[in-house]
Amino acid sequence: MARRCSNPLLYLFNYTTVRYVVTQNKIVGLLYRFFQLIIMCYLIGWVFVTKKGYQVVDDTIESSVVTKVKGIARVNTTFSDLWGPEEYVIPDHGGKFLFVVTNFIETPNQTLTTCPESPSVPFSTCTHDDNCTEGEAVRAGNGIKTGTCRKTDGNETNTCEIYGWCPTEKPRREAATMLREAENFTVYIRNFIKFSQFNLSKTNILKEGYPSYIKTCLHDEIHHPYCPVFRLGDIVSKAGYRFEEVAAKGGSIGIVIKWSCDFDMDTSDCHPQYSFMSMGSSTPVTAGYNFRFARYSSDAAGRTHRNLYKVYGFQLNVMVFGTASQFSIIHTIINVASVLTLMAVGSYICDVILLFMVKKKYAKFESLIKADKEIALQKMPDHSKRKFSH
Amino acid sequence: MARRCSNPLLYLFNYTTVRYVVTQNKIVGLLYRFFQLIIMCYLIGWVFVTKKGYQVVDDTIESSVVTKVKGIARVNTTFSDLWGPEEYVIPDHGGKFLFVVTNFIETPNQTLTTCPESPSVPFSTCTHDDNCTEGEAVRAGNGIKTGTCRKTDGNETNTCEIYGWCPTEKPRREAATMLREAENFTVYIRNFIKFSQFNLSKTNILKEGYPSYIKTCLHDEIHHPYCPVFRLGDIVSKAGYRFEEVAAKGGSIGIVIKWSCDFDMDTSDCHPQYSFMSMGSSTPVTAGYNFRFARYSSDAAGRTHRNLYKVYGFQLNVMVFGTASQFSIIHTIINVASVLTLMAVGSYICDVILLFMVKKKYAKFESLIKADKEIALQKMPDHSKRKFSH
Amino acid sequence: MARRCSNPLLYLFNYTTVRYVVTQNKIVGLLYRFFQLIIMCYLIGWVFVTKKGYQVVDDTIESSVVTKVKGIARVNTTFSDLWGPEEYVIPDHGGKFLFVVTNFIETPNQTLTTCPESPSVPFSTCTHDDNCTEGEAVRAGNGIKTGTCRKTDGNETNTCEIYGWCPTEKPRREAATMLREAENFTVYIRNFIKFSQFNLSKTNILKEGYPSYIKTCLHDEIHHPYCPVFRLGDIVSKAGYRFEEVAAKGGSIGIVIKWSCDFDMDTSDCHPQYSFMSMGSSTPVTAGYNFRFARYSSDAAGRTHRNLYKVYGFQLNVMVFGTASQFSIIHTIINVASVLTLMAVGSYICDVILLFMVKKKYAKFESLIKADKEIALQKMPDHSKRKFSH
Repeated sequence: MARRCSNPLLYLFNYTTVRYVVTQNKIVGLLYRFFQLIIMCYLIGWVFVTKKGYQVVDDTIESSVVTKVKGIARVNTTFSDLWGPEEYVIPDHGGKFLFVVTNFIETPNQTLTTCPESPSVPFSTCTHDDNCTEGEAVRAGNGIKTGTCRKTDGNETNTCEIYGWCPTEKPRREAATMLREAENFTVYIRNFIKFSQFNLSKTNILKEGYPSYIKTCLHDEIHHPYCPVFRLGDIVSKAGYRFEEVAAKGGSIGIVIKWSCDFDMDTSDCHPQYSFMSMGSSTPVTAGYNFRFARYSSDAAGRTHRNLYKVYGFQLNVMVFGTASQFSIIHTIINVASVLTLMAVGSYICDVILLFMVKKKYAKFESLIKADKEIALQKMPDHSKRKFSH
Repeated sequence: MARRCSNPLLYLFNYTTVRYVVTQNKIVGLLYRFFQLIIMCYLIGWVFVTKKGYQVVDDTIESSVVTKVKGIARVNTTFSDLWGPEEYVIPDHGGKFLFVVTNFIETPNQTLTTCPESPSVPFSTCTHDDNCTEGEAVRAGNGIKTGTCRKTDGNETNTCEIYGWCPTEKPRREAATMLREAENFTVYIRNFIKFSQFNLSKTNILKEGYPSYIKTCLHDEIHHPYCPVFRLGDIVSKAGYRFEEVAAKGGSIGIVIKWSCDFDMDTSDCHPQYSFMSMGSSTPVTAGYNFRFARYSSDAAGRTHRNLYKVYGFQLNVMVFGTASQFSIIHTIINVASVLTLMAVGSYICDVILLFMVKKKYAKFESLIKADKEIALQKMPDHSKRKFSH
Repeated sequence: MARRCSNPLLYLFNYTTVRYVVTQNKIVGLLYRFFQLIIMCYLIGWVFVTKKGYQVVDDTIESSVVTKVKGIARVNTTFSDLWGPEEYVIPDHGGKFLFVVTNFIETPNQTLTTCPESPSVPFSTCTHDDNCTEGEAVRAGNGIKTGTCRKTDGNETNTCEIYGWCPTEKPRREAATMLREAENFTVYIRNFIKFSQFNLSKTNILKEGYPSYIKTCLHDEIHHPYCPVFRLGDIVSKAGYRFEEVAAKGGSIGIVIKWSCDFDMDTSDCHPQYSFMSMGSSTPVTAGYNFRFARYSSDAAGRTHRNLYKVYGFQLNVMVFGTASQFSIIHTIINVASVLTLMAVGSYICDVILLFMVKKKYAKFESLIKADKEIALQKMPDHSKRKFSH
């Protein structure tokens, strides 16, 4: 010891370790081995195999989605009796959000004038002109009150007269779906993704796919897993909806494309996984999806007319999720280290058990320690006895 | 020892632990207890209670947003003198991005012809025809120069004549907000979320809510926290804007819906939290939100006319964030393990302090060790003394 | 020991540590120091300096994007011979997704009537009326079959007659880009971000920027890094596309704005970083971006006409990614702790090596232990000898 202190450089090559004690208590030994086994199983089975704790997962993904709907539907409107994608897909530009009209109420040839308010607007009914405040605009109403109470057309109720786009929209008769053909519309989805940090880009369309294949194929998990064209009816039923119901009232559908690319494996194995889910509850209040839009035109006299459409349909929302996982030394170390610390916890528990188990023989243990102590201390000065006991 | 080696199976049941030394140095003992207390407080108070370190947090959320704006505004345009949602909400289909027009400049009846360029376009002024290069299209200009310098209508300055949609848009007079009623417009927001990995879906609309409640209620944190209808004026003021200012120049508002669902608790406790924030700085350069669009029509002669609108208003952007937290054995172990390692660090520090504190009594400590060593080594052969000292 | 047990409070101030053994085996010592050095380098160099393991990284960012395209292009359509942003940018409202038309096919003056199907539609050709099932709507077709086989206009092939918007669109001649001026269009991008948890908001536009600067500047990494106006041609070439090719067929471009804000540093140092990437593969099948839209009008007789446009162009998608990193005590502790555990692993390995290295001198080591044991046990009762060996 004294020699070491005289040469500080030598100190560098010293290695300090702890003094181990081996006990042959079979119960504690077995317990410890059992504990080690559990930890090992946990480490290998759960942390490494199941949870892939040796990998870092990155979910930053750059994605681009192109959609195109095709199909023809016969409808009955003043505007036209045939609808193509230019009519029933809103908005036009095929992005990741698109709406396919499956039912609608047309209110043709509206002009700005006065007419009785729709009875479906809250607080619109009246019995007397005094109920209608002139200039007031009811929330959710169609115009500004003129101050007159008026009989609605072909209806027995009286409502306040308004100035607005007239005639007002009629409440929806529980009509059958007007675009019956919508079930057979096809939705083409092109998805291109990029993991910038790994410099990898993938697309959901096979490079081998010929244009003619894409023009005629239909996605099918078994026969055509790489065909990017989906039948609208299939999408709807896979999302758990009944087509007829939702086509009438509208609904939101999430088309989820999942990419899980393991960069420790061959990245050509990373394929898109499609899933479809209904994004709406079944409660009547919160169900459905509709909105209104108008088409304007002017007549020879310069007066503006508009056709109002309240459209119901499927809101398709393509959501792309991607995870890139790759071996990470930091993650591996953190996971292994915390498992090893767990091992130390096991060791500590075993120590405690050992201590309690030998309590019965504590007298003897005590005497063992005492014996040891006595030997150790037999040459020590008196006042240091209180400081250390080992 | 010799017996153990003769039966290797017995070795399995051996348990190796370290030899502990107990010191009764009160200062170090107290320090260590204090250290233990701090670590425990940190572990329980910070890691577990505050940061919920026993949970894994997943922020992958599938969300669908439906919005609908209602309200009527009196405006003064050639097109119509009353605007409903079909006119002032762009785009029509109520998604998570929507724009509500609150102010606009109409340039009616534009046709493709020649007219002097607007003086507000940079480098458009001229003194002579030579300043105007024929066929050149100025950046941010309204058309292609014809090569003539011309007096602007009702203005003393001369600008280059252009071929384009004429007349050009007039610079904005600092006019008062034209859609004053916009403050009372209502915005209905329906949000449906799904945590696929937990198979949980929630909506911000109470199942108990009747259609009539939603048609008449107005969101209020105290009285109507579950009403999904917001007054536009309230949204704007909660975002920290003054309505009059932003209505005139436009602005972006983020409507944040936060879901924090703790799957260790009852998930019926996971409610949406709304917050509103201004998404724009107050610097004049970067403030405001406007864009232009045109409506086209043809006259009897087949000539195309257009009405150009430069619209200012609120860009509402519904952002949905969700976190699902759930007990995770891996996270718990990693956190506990790292705290325990920290404990080991404390132990190490105490060891070092102990070593230094007893330096004064080092001679005695040394002699203690020496004494111990002498006993241990008294029966050892001479050459092993250099290898081990304990 | 007996004294301590009589006063349990005193026990609190006891400090239990392990008994260390110092070996002067130079090889193991050196190995351990080397191991310590590696761990230290790893901890400091990799975990702390490179990976910033002392920081927690939050990528929840609220972002708002405003875009505006400017430029004039001469085109040749029945509709107008000059296109401004109102015509070539779809949709109008400048959000984070925008499409700039660079090429298009116009099919003017379509009406609902009968005409031969386009030969480019699969399975549209026929030799006889029997090939055309009346009432059938071919997928990707333009209308509903009338049951007649008919000669296409100016073409030798026979196709089934359809009822739909006629005449049908002609297949694209490999025409030159029709909006040649698109290369010089400018795209203004305003991005406002907010890190709510840090209460920090930033914009990509310098506060010092005057309106006139923004109206005339053009982004340039060296001379104008803070100018938010980009030339479309530059964007396209930086994304790795050749302008002429993509302008003809269309393509998707991702404009990535990255904010990496280190909240331990001055946040005024956190600037946007722009990068551009092509979001499409080069395979002919999956390349390109186009969609169709129609403009409707009515003639004096009330018949609806439409102009159909198939537009090709650049889909620009502004993606904003942001990371806010800040010192986190939990992360620091987890990282340090796991590294220290790693140190313990090194220590364990050294122990094992030490054990094997001294195997040659094992007899002596054994005798050393024996010697120690004999001394310790010399005063113990006989039956406890089997339980402990130290």
